[in-house]
Amino acid sequence: MSTAPDDATSDARRRARAAADALYAGDSASQALGIELLDAAPGSVRVAMTVRTDMVNGHGICHGGILFTLADSAFAFACNSRGEPMVAAGASIEFLAPVPRGARVTATATETSRTSHGGIYDVVVAGETGEPLAYFRGRCARLRIPAQPAQPLPKDDPK
Amino acid sequence: MSTAPDDATSDARRRARAAADALYAGDSASQALGIELLDAAPGSVRVAMTVRTDMVNGHGICHGGILFTLADSAFAFACNSRGEPMVAAGASIEFLAPVPRGARVTATATETSRTSHGGIYDVVVAGETGEPLAYFRGRCARLRIPAQPAQPLPKDDPK
Amino acid sequence: MSTAPDDATSDARRRARAAADALYAGDSASQALGIELLDAAPGSVRVAMTVRTDMVNGHGICHGGILFTLADSAFAFACNSRGEPMVAAGASIEFLAPVPRGARVTATATETSRTSHGGIYDVVVAGETGEPLAYFRGRCARLRIPAQPAQPLPKDDPK
Amino acid sequence: MSTAPDDATSDARRRARAAADALYAGDSASQALGIELLDAAPGSVRVAMTVRTDMVNGHGICHGGILFTLADSAFAFACNSRGEPMVAAGASIEFLAPVPRGARVTATATETSRTSHGGIYDVVVAGETGEPLAYFRGRCARLRIPAQPAQPLPKDDPK
Repeated sequence: MSTAPDDATSDARRRARAAADALYAGDSASQALGIELLDAAPGSVRVAMTVRTDMVNGHGICHGGILFTLADSAFAFACNSRGEPMVAAGASIEFLAPVPRGARVTATATETSRTSHGGIYDVVVAGETGEPLAYFRGRCARLRIPAQPAQPLPKDDPK
Repeated sequence: MSTAPDDATSDARRRARAAADALYAGDSASQALGIELLDAAPGSVRVAMTVRTDMVNGHGICHGGILFTLADSAFAFACNSRGEPMVAAGASIEFLAPVPRGARVTATATETSRTSHGGIYDVVVAGETGEPLAYFRGRCARLRIPAQPAQPLPKDDPK
Repeated sequence: MSTAPDDATSDARRRARAAADALYAGDSASQALGIELLDAAPGSVRVAMTVRTDMVNGHGICHGGILFTLADSAFAFACNSRGEPMVAAGASIEFLAPVPRGARVTATATETSRTSHGGIYDVVVAGETGEPLAYFRGRCARLRIPAQPAQPLPKDDPK
Repeated sequence: MSTAPDDATSDARRRARAAADALYAGDSASQALGIELLDAAPGSVRVAMTVRTDMVNGHGICHGGILFTLADSAFAFACNSRGEPMVAAGASIEFLAPVPRGARVTATATETSRTSHGGIYDVVVAGETGEPLAYFRGRCARLRIPAQPAQPLPKDDPK
């Protein structure tokens, strides 16, 4: 019995979701920031976060690094959604508007280019009414070091 | 009595340090990540951080967004060291090497270009022996919204 | 008699095309490279070029700067298609594949973000079968110097 | 007889210069734009160009793509100065000031990071009095296609 195209698509989605879930499970940083994994498909991922008091910078608005981290997590889940382990090689971000404390922001990653060696992903960070807050473009490359699962917390952990 | 060049330099350094200290005092995000402000001079700032367990991503290495945040904080303190309030307009980062949990990393920001309207700052993120881990380039623009000091924690704070 | 939406759209297209034509008429660089203006709509422009022998670099493939120039021209025409004069503030490009001499390449610019102060435009450079060759992202800002039309060639012209 | 450090340095400089000269000899694009190779050392190259009438855009100033091309040539010569053939993988540029027709501009490339797989190079484009006009950052990767020397002009050449 042959697999129908719909099943293939559905299988690819299931694998993408499973890959994102597995990566998220070891991603202490995304968890600590309250980043939620909303949706994952091959090459495409959506995450969300609420700007907490401990994410605000000296100007009283969300720290640009935290917005970058949200986008970077969406990018990481998206570029690892196809089975080959990838790491970020670099990225750029344009900030459009200040994001206040308490705002709920989403980051949607889409695949712009992809080969077995690497890829380019575009991420839009948006506010509650869909207004764009930042544009992020990430480049990934095949993971050259052996992937290390997150370690159990040792006694001398810096945290 | 005229002010000697050394005094002028010394005054500029004191003002730069005071500006960085004031910005840091309201920067809950940098504080929550354990970012330390090591040195601040006009246009030039050095910060440091230790990679904690809650900064690690699904590959078991420091989340790229957290390294970006460290560099972004150095950039923010540096571009606000001259009296005019500036916010990040955009930035790019190149990741050179994976950074393990427990590593102590520093970020050193220097001023590449500066006018009253904006500037370009370069930040090198380095490991304990000075080996470069990431290169960051940030662009800032004059703050157009009124700067808001960090607010006291309200009862309905998302955190 | 009221103007129907189609007429408004059609008017905006005519103005965008006229703005692009006017800019192109003074753009000696685009003309010298044989860049053709194929299509112009508000925020969206398509140009094309054939890689000549005098566009090849020391590796025998199209010079990256020439591909950038093609994309940059599409970006310039697109960000000046709405009436307010804009200049490029910065740009980034990712090269995906080498482009041989003789290849016909197109560059399609689309508007990602736009305010009266500036904007972000994405340009895809593609080959004859539509395969992507490079991705370009440009940022523009309102022109602060008075626009100067191209001058007639003086006797001491460096050319 | 052992080779003194000065000789080794001198040898490396000679090889860097020879590599740049060889690349320049096949670089029809740089030659057509009147780009001059002023100096080449390992990882570091300086080139210059005068802005001609056929390099001006529709605003009457030097086309940003031509300034990028100048910087990109400096980058290409610099990243190929160590023996391993490299091609540009991507680059970003910040434009600081409009450059008028007739201006003589230089581009100085320096090596920010380098491994056998790739590198990061920073290029400053400056005017006659040394004032910075643009900042360029390029990333190179090992050439994966066989390098092709520029071909002699065939009869059906698109030029």
